[in-house]
Amino acid sequence: MPRTAEAKQHIREEQRAHILEAAKRIFARKGLAATVDDVAIEAGVSHGLAYRYFANKEAIFSALVKQALQAPSADQQRVWDMPGTPGERLKWLLSAFVESRRHPEAFLLLGQVLSSQTAPDELRELVRKQSQDLQSTLRQLIVEGQETFEVVAGDPDQLVRAIFACVDGLTRWAVYDPEHYQEHFPDANIFLRLLQP
Amino acid sequence: MPRTAEAKQHIREEQRAHILEAAKRIFARKGLAATVDDVAIEAGVSHGLAYRYFANKEAIFSALVKQALQAPSADQQRVWDMPGTPGERLKWLLSAFVESRRHPEAFLLLGQVLSSQTAPDELRELVRKQSQDLQSTLRQLIVEGQETFEVVAGDPDQLVRAIFACVDGLTRWAVYDPEHYQEHFPDANIFLRLLQP
Repeated sequence: MPRTAEAKQHIREEQRAHILEAAKRIFARKGLAATVDDVAIEAGVSHGLAYRYFANKEAIFSALVKQALQAPSADQQRVWDMPGTPGERLKWLLSAFVESRRHPEAFLLLGQVLSSQTAPDELRELVRKQSQDLQSTLRQLIVEGQETFEVVAGDPDQLVRAIFACVDGLTRWAVYDPEHYQEHFPDANIFLRLLQP
Repeated sequence: MPRTAEAKQHIREEQRAHILEAAKRIFARKGLAATVDDVAIEAGVSHGLAYRYFANKEAIFSALVKQALQAPSADQQRVWDMPGTPGERLKWLLSAFVESRRHPEAFLLLGQVLSSQTAPDELRELVRKQSQDLQSTLRQLIVEGQETFEVVAGDPDQLVRAIFACVDGLTRWAVYDPEHYQEHFPDANIFLRLLQP
């Protein structure tokens, strides 16, 4: 029975997603030094098949970075639409922020965009912009939470910086000691204490 | 008046220290991709003078890493010799740990040893060992502090991991945004709340 166009399209989408998953692991490990061949080997597909979906490694890297920005961006949007006090919304956002790091590959990639001298400016701007948006969101919720006495008093910029440091630092463990990353991964409630009055 | 041997020795020590200071900035920025020439230019000395003190860039890197390990190692020793309850000693160590990161270069170097695939195994082992010693020290103080009810209850390994994440994450800011690193640097008291009962 010949495959329908729809079935073919479905296979293509699955193959592309499969290659991207493999690429995420490779780029998280090797950074921009990774090659299309590395990705093809990790995905268990031929060199030629990988090139059918992506013109070069820059295209793969760019697709990965854009994918990695989606979830945090959706979380950030959601926090403004949800009911509850500032403290409750902050708690939700911070927990989502910490929990997302249990799977660190996407965040390792975003970190590489910021620290690499060879990442394209366009991607660096995208990542920076999202980080700044997230900082602004956190800062605003902290200020509102201080007004309702749900958040500890103090310089909100220092509190934002402390939270970002903690959450970014979590993924560093994945670089230093990838095998034991999941072990002892801290509960989000530990970090919520940073803001407790 | 001819220089005495002592005066010459003093000049040599100062020159070596000056070259190492310049090297610290360069290696923190460029990692192991830095060259002896980069270091000489940053230090404002000739290529030849730099080579009089260090055989190659590996020798400079190794001297820097060993220097960077000294202060944390001394802090760790001191915490066992000091008087006070476990909670008080923990507070001292944690504050020293956070405050040391205001000058991030040394810690960026240590991070590079752990994440680089080209750092010598001998150095990687030294850095790993110190990190593990510091984790053990923190863990023991946390357990003792839980017994005296000075530290929040909970899995001590998760607490150690959370603290390390926060402190390591602080130095990431120095990679992403070196110009604004000192601005909004969080007060150590913010991080002490992670352990508050």
